[in-house]
Amino acid sequence: ISTKLPNVGTTIFTVMSKLAADCGAINLSQGFPGFDCDPVLLDLVNKYMKAGYNQYAPMSGVPALRERIAEKTKLVYGIDLDSETEVTVVSGATEALYAAVTAVVKQGDEVILFDPAYDSYAPAVELNGGIPVYVPLGMPDFSVNWERVKSAISDKTRLIMVNTPHNPSGYVWTQEDLDTLAEMIQDRDILVVSDEVYEHITFDGRKHLSLLTHPILRERTFVCGSFGKTFHVTGWKIGFCLAPPKLTEEFRKIHQFLTFSTATPLQYALADYLSEPSRYLALPDFYQKKRDLFCVGLKETPFEFSPAQGSFFQMVSYAHLSQESDYDLAVRLTKEIGVASIPISVFFSDKKDHKILRFCFAKEDSDLNKALDKLGDLK
Amino acid sequence: ISTKLPNVGTTIFTVMSKLAADCGAINLSQGFPGFDCDPVLLDLVNKYMKAGYNQYAPMSGVPALRERIAEKTKLVYGIDLDSETEVTVVSGATEALYAAVTAVVKQGDEVILFDPAYDSYAPAVELNGGIPVYVPLGMPDFSVNWERVKSAISDKTRLIMVNTPHNPSGYVWTQEDLDTLAEMIQDRDILVVSDEVYEHITFDGRKHLSLLTHPILRERTFVCGSFGKTFHVTGWKIGFCLAPPKLTEEFRKIHQFLTFSTATPLQYALADYLSEPSRYLALPDFYQKKRDLFCVGLKETPFEFSPAQGSFFQMVSYAHLSQESDYDLAVRLTKEIGVASIPISVFFSDKKDHKILRFCFAKEDSDLNKALDKLGDLK
Ligand SMILES: CSCCC(=O)C(=O)O
Ligand SMILES: CSCCC(=O)C(=O)O
Repeated sequence: ISTKLPNVGTTIFTVMSKLAADCGAINLSQGFPGFDCDPVLLDLVNKYMKAGYNQYAPMSGVPALRERIAEKTKLVYGIDLDSETEVTVVSGATEALYAAVTAVVKQGDEVILFDPAYDSYAPAVELNGGIPVYVPLGMPDFSVNWERVKSAISDKTRLIMVNTPHNPSGYVWTQEDLDTLAEMIQDRDILVVSDEVYEHITFDGRKHLSLLTHPILRERTFVCGSFGKTFHVTGWKIGFCLAPPKLTEEFRKIHQFLTFSTATPLQYALADYLSEPSRYLALPDFYQKKRDLFCVGLKETPFEFSPAQGSFFQMVSYAHLSQESDYDLAVRLTKEIGVASIPISVFFSDKKDHKILRFCFAKEDSDLNKALDKLGDLK
Repeated sequence: ISTKLPNVGTTIFTVMSKLAADCGAINLSQGFPGFDCDPVLLDLVNKYMKAGYNQYAPMSGVPALRERIAEKTKLVYGIDLDSETEVTVVSGATEALYAAVTAVVKQGDEVILFDPAYDSYAPAVELNGGIPVYVPLGMPDFSVNWERVKSAISDKTRLIMVNTPHNPSGYVWTQEDLDTLAEMIQDRDILVVSDEVYEHITFDGRKHLSLLTHPILRERTFVCGSFGKTFHVTGWKIGFCLAPPKLTEEFRKIHQFLTFSTATPLQYALADYLSEPSRYLALPDFYQKKRDLFCVGLKETPFEFSPAQGSFFQMVSYAHLSQESDYDLAVRLTKEIGVASIPISVFFSDKKDHKILRFCFAKEDSDLNKALDKLGDLK
């Protein structure tokens, strides 16, 4: 068998989480919460399992869950969605991204990816015969450089992949970003996949602007969301895709053959759980406290950083301290001081080392404090 | 957006299950059990959820579950697998099939599909740029016609998709089938994807011969299995792929970007549950009783049939009774007598009507009896 993904090895998330476990290090690498979800949610799953909701869910998702997702979208973004034709439940945001890309991208199509980007985008594009066209994000804040986007667009551009709040940088798109994107693509045959899994995690009063909120973008965007990230159950692999009816129709054709449907008792449980909006509206405050705790502590370390605008990741720069590669440093910190992080070079198309590490602060305060103590000892 | 799957509409499973629900009909269409799983399995899920197993599982699956799958493979087929490098847990057999096809098929590759085939195979091939080459199964028993396979093989053939026990016919591959396939491909660069989701459902003392049991096929086959079908939880969407290390390596690269991982508490629960082999070894007897009950009843109907060799489906022929299309008849039986079935024309590449319906007998005996009473009234 000759590989279709020659550049893909073991993912950095697997590598670092395993190294953290082997070393007994505090794992601030892979993006998952170090605490449990609300036990109410678990009781709901148990209730629906026991009530016999264990056979195939409808391919597009359980109607009650699709309705609750539409209600959330209305409440949070003021946008009306038809839960029948515009909302699909999937087996995690990763599946949503893959299905959306597969629905759109044909052999030879160009797809604009911002660089750095989450590691599943380029393989999804390439496996569908598409050609990634990378647009470097602006340094040091990882903002979008729209002149570069403009030059990257060609007659072959078919899709742009957006991620806001951005992983790994936490950059949150502004209204100007949305407007500029809309203006650039409105007269072209270009669609958008928007990875918004950290939609409920923004800081300092900043609001996440879903691409749905822009009338032009709303007509051509697949928005991918994640219950794993929002309700602290990343292991459940359940998310959703929001898109206009024609896009949703094509999305579902792909979803049908990728996984067909998503775990039924989890869907019913989440439908009930979503009926209390406070459960997701509380998230910015919850994570703001953790980001603040982490950033206050980081000031006592030799790292440089500016506080993340969103997501549950905080990047730090060490270029002024050492010339060690970010990968080597991440490994060394895990082994020597017992704190695991992600070297962000892995997110760049050219794997270039920018001397930046990413820490996940979705952890118990006690673990964050312990990690900060250890990092504070660095010279 | 122009569609990449012009021939795909709403799946027949959705159509018939919805019609059955709307008509209050007994639903013998879509293939899922009409009874609950063992409550022990549900308690295990609840236990692991409550114990905090709700974050990402390892990408390849929880080690304990991979080990139990390897043990089952040893016990049932006498085959040793390395759970580290040859077993991957996925979000349902549909994902396993899609990932295996994606791992292998490149633009322009030919893929041999037996006709009729489960509805996800051809789209999986086509979405990866492959060209389905259909080999009609022998009528009336849906056995493999090896002369036709031989003529279908070309220099471009890269993959053959096998399904035993076969859906919709229940045909179970013989040792001769395995030997002949091995002989035909052993000197060629051809791999195999084997859909064995009904591995534990065979009748009349017939044994399922996994392609793993053939030394030549074992080296080049992805075997796709399903816990949903085996433990009566089709809605959980959890299955596995067994393949030699080199194939598994490529399979995982795809799985990583399709769904990344599969619901963690379900994995731990299934690992524990699998530790009692009687739980899957009892399946042939359990389903034999249902098949026998259904076939005894069918004798009192005007349909012709021969009892299924495996799977939980029974086909019936009505060519001697009416020229109505199988789709029209399936709809009419649902509406008029209250029994839903699947018209098998949907499984054929040319959608040709063979005047055959498929009934799922994975239902409570009382429902099977009620359905048989209704079918017995047909003239
Ligand atoms: C799917 S594992 C990676 C989780 C994640 O989103 C991250 O760490 O960036
Ligand atoms: C994924 S829904 C279809 C279930 C099934 O295997 C069948 O009915 O053939």
